[in-house]
Amino acid sequence: MKSVLERIHKPNDIKKVNKKEYGKLAKEIRGFLVRSISKTGGHLASNLGAVELTMALHLAMDFPEDKLIFDVGHQAYTHKILTGRKEEFATLRTYEGLSGFPKRKESDCDAFDTGHSSTSISAAAGYAAARDLAGEHYKVAAVIGDGALSGGMAYEALNNIGGSRSNMLIVLNDNQMSISENVGGMAAYLGKVRTNVKYMEFKDDLEQTLRKTKAGTRLVYGLKRSKDSIKHFFVPSMFFEDMGITYVGPIDGHNIELMVRAFKTAFSAGKPVLVHVITEKGKGYEYAKENPSAFHGVDPFDIKTGKGLIKKTGKSYTQVFSEAICELAEEDNKLTAITAAMPQGTGLDAFAKKFPNRFFDVGIAEEHAVTFAAGMAAGGLSPVVAVYSTFLQRAYDQIVHDVCVSGLPVVFAVDRAGIVGNDGETHQGILDISYLSHIPGLTVMAPKDATELKEMLSFAVKLKKPVALRYPRGTAWEIEEPKQTPIVYGKAEVLYKETEIALLAVGSMVETALRVRELLREGAYRASVVNMRFVSPMDTDMLDDVAECHRVVVTLEENIRDGGFGEKVAAYYAKKGMKVQLKNIALPNQYIEHGDIEVLKEKYGLSAEKVAEEVRAFYRGN
Amino acid sequence: MKSVLERIHKPNDIKKVNKKEYGKLAKEIRGFLVRSISKTGGHLASNLGAVELTMALHLAMDFPEDKLIFDVGHQAYTHKILTGRKEEFATLRTYEGLSGFPKRKESDCDAFDTGHSSTSISAAAGYAAARDLAGEHYKVAAVIGDGALSGGMAYEALNNIGGSRSNMLIVLNDNQMSISENVGGMAAYLGKVRTNVKYMEFKDDLEQTLRKTKAGTRLVYGLKRSKDSIKHFFVPSMFFEDMGITYVGPIDGHNIELMVRAFKTAFSAGKPVLVHVITEKGKGYEYAKENPSAFHGVDPFDIKTGKGLIKKTGKSYTQVFSEAICELAEEDNKLTAITAAMPQGTGLDAFAKKFPNRFFDVGIAEEHAVTFAAGMAAGGLSPVVAVYSTFLQRAYDQIVHDVCVSGLPVVFAVDRAGIVGNDGETHQGILDISYLSHIPGLTVMAPKDATELKEMLSFAVKLKKPVALRYPRGTAWEIEEPKQTPIVYGKAEVLYKETEIALLAVGSMVETALRVRELLREGAYRASVVNMRFVSPMDTDMLDDVAECHRVVVTLEENIRDGGFGEKVAAYYAKKGMKVQLKNIALPNQYIEHGDIEVLKEKYGLSAEKVAEEVRAFYRGN
Repeated sequence: MKSVLERIHKPNDIKKVNKKEYGKLAKEIRGFLVRSISKTGGHLASNLGAVELTMALHLAMDFPEDKLIFDVGHQAYTHKILTGRKEEFATLRTYEGLSGFPKRKESDCDAFDTGHSSTSISAAAGYAAARDLAGEHYKVAAVIGDGALSGGMAYEALNNIGGSRSNMLIVLNDNQMSISENVGGMAAYLGKVRTNVKYMEFKDDLEQTLRKTKAGTRLVYGLKRSKDSIKHFFVPSMFFEDMGITYVGPIDGHNIELMVRAFKTAFSAGKPVLVHVITEKGKGYEYAKENPSAFHGVDPFDIKTGKGLIKKTGKSYTQVFSEAICELAEEDNKLTAITAAMPQGTGLDAFAKKFPNRFFDVGIAEEHAVTFAAGMAAGGLSPVVAVYSTFLQRAYDQIVHDVCVSGLPVVFAVDRAGIVGNDGETHQGILDISYLSHIPGLTVMAPKDATELKEMLSFAVKLKKPVALRYPRGTAWEIEEPKQTPIVYGKAEVLYKETEIALLAVGSMVETALRVRELLREGAYRASVVNMRFVSPMDTDMLDDVAECHRVVVTLEENIRDGGFGEKVAAYYAKKGMKVQLKNIALPNQYIEHGDIEVLKEKYGLSAEKVAEEVRAFYRGN
Repeated sequence: MKSVLERIHKPNDIKKVNKKEYGKLAKEIRGFLVRSISKTGGHLASNLGAVELTMALHLAMDFPEDKLIFDVGHQAYTHKILTGRKEEFATLRTYEGLSGFPKRKESDCDAFDTGHSSTSISAAAGYAAARDLAGEHYKVAAVIGDGALSGGMAYEALNNIGGSRSNMLIVLNDNQMSISENVGGMAAYLGKVRTNVKYMEFKDDLEQTLRKTKAGTRLVYGLKRSKDSIKHFFVPSMFFEDMGITYVGPIDGHNIELMVRAFKTAFSAGKPVLVHVITEKGKGYEYAKENPSAFHGVDPFDIKTGKGLIKKTGKSYTQVFSEAICELAEEDNKLTAITAAMPQGTGLDAFAKKFPNRFFDVGIAEEHAVTFAAGMAAGGLSPVVAVYSTFLQRAYDQIVHDVCVSGLPVVFAVDRAGIVGNDGETHQGILDISYLSHIPGLTVMAPKDATELKEMLSFAVKLKKPVALRYPRGTAWEIEEPKQTPIVYGKAEVLYKETEIALLAVGSMVETALRVRELLREGAYRASVVNMRFVSPMDTDMLDDVAECHRVVVTLEENIRDGGFGEKVAAYYAKKGMKVQLKNIALPNQYIEHGDIEVLKEKYGLSAEKVAEEVRAFYRGN
């Protein structure tokens, strides 16, 4: 039998598919996703869960006229397949290949770029407002997971559109998980809603029962005619209704025809409607279904065994952090750990098992996480908030207002600092030095290697001040020589001392600096290497020393140039009136696309070879 | 009769007051607040509304052992009075005087510093976790207004504590307003809860009815004994109950004894309890009650007439913005305006009246405001988000992730940039250059005067790029000479051209720079004055020019030094290898306390005199 998927080449092709073939198409899309992602890696479980849901949306909407916004966005693969991007999946998340997220630049069917959680309802509300003002009539829909619903922004948006006369569809894609299991009151509430109804049966039974009598038939007819009829077939959720949002559901998120009907009804209501659909993460691929957390984001794997094909070499920085915080917690019973829905990603899962009373997963809620930690610190604890660099952006105000204004001892373990690779623009951790290092009262540190990360974490917890500790994604490096020296507050560490060139490196760039030093030696250039350790406060004695003893000074950091470490050094020298031949090596002031980390470092001049080349040229020119 | 208030000198003194005197004490506190604030200025309406509520909390709690956190914090005056700070009210919000907000530094009865909205439940949850881990038993309470409940953080916190076994009291102080009238689904919902019950009567009636029979009496007894009995007397709010929070209310927020009973019951429940109290903003002072918005934050006023005693001289920048955006909206029907619950404060009230369809008040929800605007921009509109510098901090991630990554044309009208004065640390707008100017793709501008603000707003809206426009609090200055020149993208404006000293000024510092120029002339120093206009992108041609033509270059900005404009200039010169005698004049890297703006500028070296002094010394030294 001929493949249905092969007939899908462009937007709206799915509308030519016979209803009877929907199941076959869904199965083919799942097969395609598993085969494709097993080769390239990518987000698997969430995409397998959203196949029918996305098909139903495509049947109920027209692209690119209508606007569909995927919250977080990593579940948009089926949407990409249905809008003519199937052939590009071989390049998924590789440099210059298909993005793993919706991208306006990539397709006019991608209405809004997403990556971080809980933004979709806000963006959709903006589109709906624009449509209404222009007197247009296109459809607007947001697809948001139950996990993303724990983010405060989503609630702000629901609160704002509550009672509005502007139509939009919110699909609550409820798979009972974010990346990990969901936590909190909303998750418990949705659990209750789910278990209180046998959804499909309920609806069908009701309709059939009603149809048995004349009056009942009239009622069904009346309900079907009335604009928001469909909700009466289901158990209403007072939570959303209380907020002024018409609620429909819960309905089976793998029943395409039912969803199409619900979505079409919702689009014809003159107000916001939330359709609650229940889906199964990992559906159709046994290993992903059994362990959706592990199959959230995957490296290439063997389809038959579900096992990863890439051999992990050595511990990651995340694992080093994971072990270090457990060791510290053994000694210090005031130490607590907080994650915003990422116990695995941050390595706090081990801590959670060992110290369940001191572990707090607050859901996708970075803002609350930080101020919750501030409250703990005010109450005498030593909280450590473990979070990715890019997600901590959301708590900038809380870091300033709730932690640093009062100088409360909260430690931020900032993972995925620097280029993260395949997830691209929205996930690179290349702004944190800029947004953290100017904050008054915040100490910002970066370790050069695994051992130093452990030392620094211990140092930070004992410091009893606000501290951010940034470390990169990937395998943790371990310096061989020279030996580690003890950490002293605000002081850098000299690794090699020469007289011509001083390389001042932050965190991940220390390893690079040592390789640059070797490359420079080949050309008989002598380079000192300094591990800065502290971005703020800066070791100004060290800055004075290196300026005196070298012909040129070079700063190295895996962060954008603006607001970065190099600028701070330049400003310091200017302030002191010191005439220093200074070169700042950093990422350019732009968003960095997806691709392999090494490829991107090479492209943007942070590879050892590129740095050595630049330093050589700079030295010769001065 | 002797004053009751005179017997209150220190924490817990209120417990010695006879119940019969509660009403008298409340009245005396109100009288004190009105008299005191009429002289010093300060937050009036919210404090008048929270007198009995605060008294009840003090009767149910022990200070400083117990932890009470006021959301936003400007309603904590009665708390200050009851904890021994009455005598200091004469110095309220003045330099080195009593702060208008809770301050840990000021009293050990102030458990957590607040200022921004919606943080209290998170902080209280942190305290409660710390208490439980330490095996202690102190009480923890958060007082949050219904307005602050529209902030996503509050919801994140509710979601997190839902179902928890950790006791804390959340007092929902429901006065049906934030600073302005509340908006959104939650406000409508609370409105329904309020109107669906006649609260006090309901409770009393029920109890009396029940007591008429033996079984009823037993039931009352049983209800009273059971830990969470009190809630059964009232209509439960499914919204909070759905979230896993025990709900009690609504009850009369001016009935002290009832509240004490409710609070004590709540403290004895082994879980979080929300007590919903209804208060009247401005209660006890007619003018404030009638117009709580106008009496939210007030300057000194005449008690008899309610009229301000300080003559306003000239238009504020806010008013200039207000007129400018209305003019632009006349020409451009794509222009929309968004505020996060501050139509008056931002000057958008006029716009709201003229263009109700294009005006959006999203509630206290800066994150949603920004992404909502991004959605509008993606939908073809020209949205302007008007917001205070300090509150925009909360949307850092949304500015990056939702606006700038996609380059969507959202304009941020950043009011209260620079020192704001009396509100102190949590409200100063001294970080925005640092947190905005490094964001890739964001244009950051600052006008020198009223006319330029109008020009810049028009320019920004027409640019079709993400733009932030920062302007200060207070009376708008208007330059007399030289004449305005047209705005050109990325280009500065030379006001005076000399050869010795170049003063490069950002926004509010242009006026200062011109006065500095005059002061320097008295000593026969010649200073050029450049109005930078753009913080990013910087006018590097201008930087090259001034460096060539002057002996020294001085940057001037009303922002902290770190991550500011001056550092960017220093980094630029370093990058070009230019040896420039550069001095950066900016605020020190610290939080700036409350006090008169001019006093603070003098203290921190931004007054014309102080700047002239520094420039003279720098020039002589180079």
